Amino acid sequence: MTDLLAEARKLDARDPLAAHRDAFVDAPGVSAYLDGNSLGRPLRELPDRLAAFIREDWGTRLIRSWDEEWMDLPTRLGDRIGALCLGAAAGQTVVADSTTVLLYKLMRAAVDARPNRSDIVIEEGNFPTDRFVAEGVAAERGMTLRWVAADPVAGVQVADIEAVVNENTALVVLSHVDYRSGALADMAAITDAVHASGALMLWDLCHSVGVIPTELDACGADLAVGCTYKYLNGGPGSPAFAYVNARHHGVLRQPVQGWMGAGDVFAMSSAYAPADGIRHFISGTPPVLGMLAMQGMLDLIEQATIDAVREKSKTLTDLVVQAYDEELAPLGVRLLSPRDAAARGGHVTIGHPDFAEVTKTLWADGVIPDFRFPDGIRLGLSPLSTSHQEALSGVLAVRDALG
Amino acid sequence: MTDLLAEARKLDARDPLAAHRDAFVDAPGVSAYLDGNSLGRPLRELPDRLAAFIREDWGTRLIRSWDEEWMDLPTRLGDRIGALCLGAAAGQTVVADSTTVLLYKLMRAAVDARPNRSDIVIEEGNFPTDRFVAEGVAAERGMTLRWVAADPVAGVQVADIEAVVNENTALVVLSHVDYRSGALADMAAITDAVHASGALMLWDLCHSVGVIPTELDACGADLAVGCTYKYLNGGPGSPAFAYVNARHHGVLRQPVQGWMGAGDVFAMSSAYAPADGIRHFISGTPPVLGMLAMQGMLDLIEQATIDAVREKSKTLTDLVVQAYDEELAPLGVRLLSPRDAAARGGHVTIGHPDFAEVTKTLWADGVIPDFRFPDGIRLGLSPLSTSHQEALSGVLAVRDALG
Repeated sequence: MTDLLAEARKLDARDPLAAHRDAFVDAPGVSAYLDGNSLGRPLRELPDRLAAFIREDWGTRLIRSWDEEWMDLPTRLGDRIGALCLGAAAGQTVVADSTTVLLYKLMRAAVDARPNRSDIVIEEGNFPTDRFVAEGVAAERGMTLRWVAADPVAGVQVADIEAVVNENTALVVLSHVDYRSGALADMAAITDAVHASGALMLWDLCHSVGVIPTELDACGADLAVGCTYKYLNGGPGSPAFAYVNARHHGVLRQPVQGWMGAGDVFAMSSAYAPADGIRHFISGTPPVLGMLAMQGMLDLIEQATIDAVREKSKTLTDLVVQAYDEELAPLGVRLLSPRDAAARGGHVTIGHPDFAEVTKTLWADGVIPDFRFPDGIRLGLSPLSTSHQEALSGVLAVRDALG
Repeated sequence: MTDLLAEARKLDARDPLAAHRDAFVDAPGVSAYLDGNSLGRPLRELPDRLAAFIREDWGTRLIRSWDEEWMDLPTRLGDRIGALCLGAAAGQTVVADSTTVLLYKLMRAAVDARPNRSDIVIEEGNFPTDRFVAEGVAAERGMTLRWVAADPVAGVQVADIEAVVNENTALVVLSHVDYRSGALADMAAITDAVHASGALMLWDLCHSVGVIPTELDACGADLAVGCTYKYLNGGPGSPAFAYVNARHHGVLRQPVQGWMGAGDVFAMSSAYAPADGIRHFISGTPPVLGMLAMQGMLDLIEQATIDAVREKSKTLTDLVVQAYDEELAPLGVRLLSPRDAAARGGHVTIGHPDFAEVTKTLWADGVIPDFRFPDGIRLGLSPLSTSHQEALSGVLAVRDALG
């Protein structure tokens, strides 16, 4: 049997990103935080950043800050996320709303641009809000929802998509990293397959952004959304982002026509004339206060590089799988994530009938994974804030709680 | 000629709310902030509130805070706004999204509930985002937008509404306080007139909430929205609120079907089943961080009472009108707000062809009103943070800049 603790210590000693862990707020009483893929931890610098913002930008510049700084913040921040994490050239990414609202706006824009096609295709295990929005859009546009079946561990494959898309498909909606299994979809190949049918492709990047680089431009992606409170540490309910490839600007129209997406925001004109570029996808007043926390995390990612973050994500999840094999498999725990790190995002999911109870015990003891109904535990490992020893201790705590 | 300064000093000396001004962050270099109706000032207590939130709720309780506190925050905070400011019983108000997104959701819910009616009625001078959303909803539902003409100073009257609503009207959308003139609409009488036609009434309370009490339940209002970054001092882009009268719960359905508006959020069920009550009007993850700043202001309003806030609002705007008569009318400045405080909200608007230039001069000098295209200056007077002397100094600065 491997000495797992020695292995974890060795990995931490070699970890080029180890020092970044000090950038996060201490959590007294929490020995292992394994839910950075639900809610990333706050940075130590954040209270000072917010206090300075309150004193200066908001408190002293007051309304003048809209002209001086805030009007462009949604696109400036979007561009930064695009450059650091998404492989997206400037002018195609915007921070706004929630993931759900952006999913609605982009799905509506997409299907309204394919009026002669009847189907929206979505994976049957996709995150509920993706499915619910698609269900609503299909119903209101008189369209049909077509379900893609995928292996619950391996996730959706190109062949799964090719089997269902055709000349009736208006839009395909998939998650890049499956929220349950962590399975990583082949973005380039699937986007190509969808385009071959003439449909548009919308990627949900909630479990990708900040932990695994994507190449939206290089893949020819049409549309993407993602959230900023997981691996971008934007805080609970921080705003989401939308990517709309420049070739669709001025063509795709979203339905929530607001003043901040109009061509001339302060003209107070009598009819809505959409902004030319990505700004059209904004509706209401940008949530400025909610866009501050993620900026410190983007600074960290810029220093670390997203490729190094991804490398550490692999060693973290590999260690968890190794520890699972040795410590949990013998107890009847199932591995619900791919074994190959190259086919996996930033979390590892395991299953056991007792996990609802186990999670309660762990949470009370300061070991905090995520419980997924009905019997899954997700071990989410945010590379910049999580050590290998912390990840290992989570697995061992699960073992002890089961014992 | 009145000694205006003596008058202002006297009003400040008698002002029972004067001490609350100390609750707000200092703005060095700003001698008069007259744009609290665009962006309320931050409270001094806010940096500590946020630091405690970051250290404890977010940083230490981490994901556990969703169960412990955050899931109910949208309705808890909505109930508080409803009780303190709106005359709304619990369970009918929710904080979420932006005003624009909530306008879209409520307008869609309303017109979809009146499928045999063809018209949406809106005042032609309503705020652009209200008009743009209505225009979009009308277009996508194959409906007709009917414009109400209203006197630009006196604002919309009951007779204006009676002249246009009929058996074809599905929905009427009006602002309670006009964003330009500050004119106050008669909520009770207009709601009755709209109901007499069988239509639903949606009130925009952006320029009302926190400065003038409304009686939504007593007026039999159907729907309302409002923002929290003006007189509720929630910070730039803080989330909005929606009110849906309980008699419409389970009947009206909004189109942005998200996981947080589902009956069982974590069931991850296969089809969307809406929550029974006001929660259905939530779509995505609640913007928790954006809901913190307004809580301090609600504490202040609770101490002061909304009726006392309204009384001070009247003495502030009365003083501005008096100073206008004496100092600005002789210079050819027009009064664009009602003279009677009972017919006016919390701001006074004046007009002059040079006001675009005047505003630049004032802003550079630390006197900060709001410019409204093409030639208006709005003097927005947030009662808890504004003194009578400050309001007066704004009028005198306009005079000096014109001279």
